[in-house]
Amino acid sequence: MTAHFDSKTETIQTGLQNIQGSLNSLCEQISELEQRVSSNEDNVDDLTKRVQTLEKENAYLKDKVEDAENRNRSSNLRFIGVPEKSEGRDMIVFMNKMIPLLLGCENFSTMPVIERAHRTPIFGSNARSAPRPILVKFLHFQDKVKILRLARAKEVLTYSGTRIHIYPDFSAGLVKKRREFDAVKKILRAADIKYSLLYPCTLRVTVDGKPKLFRCPEEADLFVKTLPSSPLI
Amino acid sequence: MTAHFDSKTETIQTGLQNIQGSLNSLCEQISELEQRVSSNEDNVDDLTKRVQTLEKENAYLKDKVEDAENRNRSSNLRFIGVPEKSEGRDMIVFMNKMIPLLLGCENFSTMPVIERAHRTPIFGSNARSAPRPILVKFLHFQDKVKILRLARAKEVLTYSGTRIHIYPDFSAGLVKKRREFDAVKKILRAADIKYSLLYPCTLRVTVDGKPKLFRCPEEADLFVKTLPSSPLI
Amino acid sequence: MTAHFDSKTETIQTGLQNIQGSLNSLCEQISELEQRVSSNEDNVDDLTKRVQTLEKENAYLKDKVEDAENRNRSSNLRFIGVPEKSEGRDMIVFMNKMIPLLLGCENFSTMPVIERAHRTPIFGSNARSAPRPILVKFLHFQDKVKILRLARAKEVLTYSGTRIHIYPDFSAGLVKKRREFDAVKKILRAADIKYSLLYPCTLRVTVDGKPKLFRCPEEADLFVKTLPSSPLI
Repeated sequence: MTAHFDSKTETIQTGLQNIQGSLNSLCEQISELEQRVSSNEDNVDDLTKRVQTLEKENAYLKDKVEDAENRNRSSNLRFIGVPEKSEGRDMIVFMNKMIPLLLGCENFSTMPVIERAHRTPIFGSNARSAPRPILVKFLHFQDKVKILRLARAKEVLTYSGTRIHIYPDFSAGLVKKRREFDAVKKILRAADIKYSLLYPCTLRVTVDGKPKLFRCPEEADLFVKTLPSSPLI
Repeated sequence: MTAHFDSKTETIQTGLQNIQGSLNSLCEQISELEQRVSSNEDNVDDLTKRVQTLEKENAYLKDKVEDAENRNRSSNLRFIGVPEKSEGRDMIVFMNKMIPLLLGCENFSTMPVIERAHRTPIFGSNARSAPRPILVKFLHFQDKVKILRLARAKEVLTYSGTRIHIYPDFSAGLVKKRREFDAVKKILRAADIKYSLLYPCTLRVTVDGKPKLFRCPEEADLFVKTLPSSPLI
Repeated sequence: MTAHFDSKTETIQTGLQNIQGSLNSLCEQISELEQRVSSNEDNVDDLTKRVQTLEKENAYLKDKVEDAENRNRSSNLRFIGVPEKSEGRDMIVFMNKMIPLLLGCENFSTMPVIERAHRTPIFGSNARSAPRPILVKFLHFQDKVKILRLARAKEVLTYSGTRIHIYPDFSAGLVKKRREFDAVKKILRAADIKYSLLYPCTLRVTVDGKPKLFRCPEEADLFVKTLPSSPLI
C-alpha cells in the first residue's frame, strides 16, 4: 500500500519538477524578450527623434529650394494669349517687336535685353486649344519690373486683336500659396480697398493710408470680416 | 498512514498553488509584453510611413537641387585641352582673344561678355599631366549657345597646334545620366541616324523626318534593336 | 482508503494536466511574441539604414542648398553704415552716386550696372538705432570684385562724415562658418602674417612666400600654435 502510494506521489513530484523546469525556462525566455523589446523601444525612440529632425530639415530644404526656384525666375515674365505660330522662326526677335507694340514704343527708347524666350510646354490633361504661354527671361530685373508696371497701368493689352495678359513667373508651389488669398482679394476689390500681394506671399492692404501686412489668408480673413463694408456682414 | 498521506498531498497541493501563482504572473508579464510589442509595431508602422514620405521628398529635393545646379551653370562652357600657363595673368583677357581665334573673328563683331573664367581644379586620383579644363561663365545665355553652335559646325578646333574641345557645363549627376545614352548613341552613329541629346537628358532621334523622344536609355535601347541597320541584328 | 487516495491523486493529476495545458499555451504565446519582436527588430534595422541614408542625403542637400544660396548672392554687396533716409526715393540712383564718391570717381569711367538695391530688413530683437544695411545686386560679378578690391585698398571709407563698411553678401550659415576662423585671424594679424579667407570658407596663409590652405579652424589653430611669433607661446 505504502509502496503504491509512494510510487504515485513520486510520479507527481517528477511532474512538478518538470513543470518547474519549464517555468524557469519560460521565465528566462520572457526576460530575454523583455530586453529585446526594451532595446527595440529605445531604437524606435531614437529613430522617432531622428525622423522628426529630418522632417524639420526637409521643411527647411523645401522652402529654400522653392525660394531658389523663384529667384531663378525673378527676371521672367509669362505672356498669355499670344496666338500660336505668330512668332515665326525667332521668338526673341518676335518679343522684341511685340513688347513695344503692346506697351507703347515711347516707353522703350532702349530695348530690354531678352536672354531666352520660348513657349512653355503644356503638360498632361491641360492640352487645350488655347495658345501656350510664352516665357521670357530678361537680362535685367528692372526691365521685368518696368514691363509689369506698364502692363498694370494700361489694364487692357491687345496684340493684333487678341487680349494679352502678362504675369510674373512663379513656381507651382508659390502660385498655389498666392491663390489662397483669392477669396480675400475679391472681398477687398468689392469694398474698394487697395491691396497688393508682395513677393513671395504677403498681402499688403492700405487702411486709412496705413499699410497692414498679412502673411497668411486666415489672418487676412479675420481682418476683412471686421470691415464695415464687408459683403459678409 | 492517512496522516502521512495527507501531509504528502498537502505539500503537493502547495507546490501546485505556487506553480499556478507563477503561471499567473507569467501571463501578466506576457500580456504586458504583448502591449509593448503592439505599441512598438504601431510606432514602427508610423515611422515607416514617415520615412517613405521623407524618401519621396528627398528624391524631389535632389531633382530640384540638381536642376538649380544646372541652371546656375546654364551660361557656362568648359574648354578642354588649352595648354597650362598659356593664359598668362588674366584668364578673361585670354579667353576674349582665344574664342575669336578658335571660331573665326568674323563671327564676333561684338564680343561675348565673360563674367568669370578660371581653370577648374582637378580632384583626387584624376591628377594627370593633361591641362586642367577652363570654365567660362558668360553673361548672356545666347553667347554660350552661339559658341557651341560654331564649335559643332567647325568640328575640329585647334589653338596654337593643340586640339580644343568645348562642352556645356553640367553637374556630375547630369553628366552621369547623359552618359547612360552613350551605347545607344554609338549604334545610331554607326547606323547613320541623326540624333541629339536634349537638355537635361532626353534623346531625340529623327526617323523618316519625324522626331522621336526617349527619356531613358532602356526605351532608346528597345528602339535601336528594331532598326534594320542595327549592328546588333 | 485506496479509493480516497486515488481520488486525491486524480485531482492532483488533473491539476498537473491543466498546468501543462497552460504552459503549452504560454509557450505558443511566447514563440508568437518572439516572431513579432524579431520582425520588429528587422523593421527597425531597415528603418535605421533608411534614416542613415536620409541623414546623409540631407547633409548633402543642405550643402547644395547653401551653395545655391551663396551663388545667388555672388554679385551682391552689403553697404553698412549709410544713414537712413539719405537715399531719397530711388536707391539705385543713390548708389550710382555714392559708389564713385566713396571709392574715387577716377575708378568708374564706366559705371557698374546695379540690378537691385534696397535696405535689408532687420529681424526680431536686432532692431536698433543703427541704419539698416543696403544690399546691392550688381549685374556683373567683376564689378563686385572691383568694388571690394578698391574698398580694401582704401581701408577707411567715409560718406558725408559717417564711416561705411562694404562686405560680400553671404548666407547666415556661411557667415557662421567663416566666423569660426576669427580667433585664428586675430593671432595672424598680431603676428603680422598675411592671410585671406577664400570663398566659401578656406583660410589661406602665406608663410615664407608659400601659400598654406586650412579648411577648418582646428587645423589652422594647430598651425598658429607652432608660430614662434605666436602670442600663445
